Amino acid sequence: MKYIVYAYCQIMFMELKKNKIVLMGAGNVATHLGLALQEKGFSIVQVYSRTFTSAERLGNLLQTNYTNELQAVYPDADIYIFSVKDAVLSSVLGELPALSGLLIHTAGSLPLDAFAGCSQRFGVLYPLQTFGKNRKISFENIPVFIEANNPSDEQLLEEIASVISNKVFRLTSEKRKFLHLAAVFACNFTNHLYAQAAEIMEEQDLPWELLLPLVQETADKIKDLHPREAQTGPAVRYDENVINRHLELLNKEVEKQTIYLLLSQSIHRKK
Amino acid sequence: MKYIVYAYCQIMFMELKKNKIVLMGAGNVATHLGLALQEKGFSIVQVYSRTFTSAERLGNLLQTNYTNELQAVYPDADIYIFSVKDAVLSSVLGELPALSGLLIHTAGSLPLDAFAGCSQRFGVLYPLQTFGKNRKISFENIPVFIEANNPSDEQLLEEIASVISNKVFRLTSEKRKFLHLAAVFACNFTNHLYAQAAEIMEEQDLPWELLLPLVQETADKIKDLHPREAQTGPAVRYDENVINRHLELLNKEVEKQTIYLLLSQSIHRKK
Repeated sequence: MKYIVYAYCQIMFMELKKNKIVLMGAGNVATHLGLALQEKGFSIVQVYSRTFTSAERLGNLLQTNYTNELQAVYPDADIYIFSVKDAVLSSVLGELPALSGLLIHTAGSLPLDAFAGCSQRFGVLYPLQTFGKNRKISFENIPVFIEANNPSDEQLLEEIASVISNKVFRLTSEKRKFLHLAAVFACNFTNHLYAQAAEIMEEQDLPWELLLPLVQETADKIKDLHPREAQTGPAVRYDENVINRHLELLNKEVEKQTIYLLLSQSIHRKK
Repeated sequence: MKYIVYAYCQIMFMELKKNKIVLMGAGNVATHLGLALQEKGFSIVQVYSRTFTSAERLGNLLQTNYTNELQAVYPDADIYIFSVKDAVLSSVLGELPALSGLLIHTAGSLPLDAFAGCSQRFGVLYPLQTFGKNRKISFENIPVFIEANNPSDEQLLEEIASVISNKVFRLTSEKRKFLHLAAVFACNFTNHLYAQAAEIMEEQDLPWELLLPLVQETADKIKDLHPREAQTGPAVRYDENVINRHLELLNKEVEKQTIYLLLSQSIHRKK
């Protein structure tokens, strides 16, 4: 029995990997996703980017065809993965020749129906991660959220996503919006606070890297504890002496001062 | 020659560890610092805490004497480490019998002269880390900042701190204030953004733990890249479509909305 299941899975896998994929975009998401898919045996048959050098770079990296002309995009691929800036997607779609394949995008902030009217078959594959240039990221632990406008493509996307990630979920556009919003808080805003902390250090000629063990432990802590429970510092006990002294230290930096006060009050209200 | 240096170091080490230490406070900092010192062979001869059960708990953990009465604090120890709330320190100092040992505190936000008038010898040993209950933390990589009111005690503190940490620095009270301020941004405020992100997830019935790989990668990224360079997301390119949609999603949560707008504008200004 075990062998039959195994053989069946192998065949399904082989079928799945016959899907010819075109990457529409050559930025960080396209690069990481393209590499992860290719590593698992999928065929990336082409890379398109408006910028020739970007198309060339990723095309070379994946050893595949590349182009910066929409008219040269292969019309007969099975899946087109759009990883372009949100604002660019609609203009690219408007200029594309008709495609019969499955069109998907990778944006947290765009709804499924960004493709409506352009195609019969469309979907979303949203990896919840921040992708940096030149950073090696293992896709396996990245939560991937999928959605499609028809059940068979949703099934197909789920199967493909499951090859590269262990955490694949079906999610509606409505919920994905909030997921993306939460990610902005947990990643973009957090990083900005790192930058502000680094600035405060640098203004005192202190190496900002001294903060790294603290940053790491702050992130580690919430693996065991809900962040609400993990809160420490002067704001949670609203230690006005410390808070006022800190506000005074920031007296020439109105922006940091405003952020300090707003976040301290917000922490205290949540207590 | 190597053996002479080694033997000399051993003797210095033995001398150093003859210092009898009293922990004044039994909270997270006292607990982690006490454990780290004891592990390296220092004698914690007593634990004091206003709360009897706290004194008892840490006393038992360190298998040492404990008390909740200031009059019972040993008068002949070599070093007294005060890890109490900032506001509590001066009242504790006021009630203490005269002590001839070295008095130090572990607070980022208090100046060296918090002890002035109470003692001839005083100092600071500030570990730049967030200490949680029930969390095992290795002290070795924690940056420790020391200061004293006389050169020989500064030397002594530097030697003691170097036994438990690989990163010991002398730092003035003036600079330590800013270090502590930076830590509030990098740790306390960051954690609050995690909490807000978790709330957004929970309101949509999404498990907040899905954010953990993103949180981890955001912290990891700045090990290779200055946080200013690591910034991603809609705010850095000031993508008004996305930002306005996010603000609308938060239309019933004025506090989150204000934080979102303030941080987005701050990110964009820094670009």
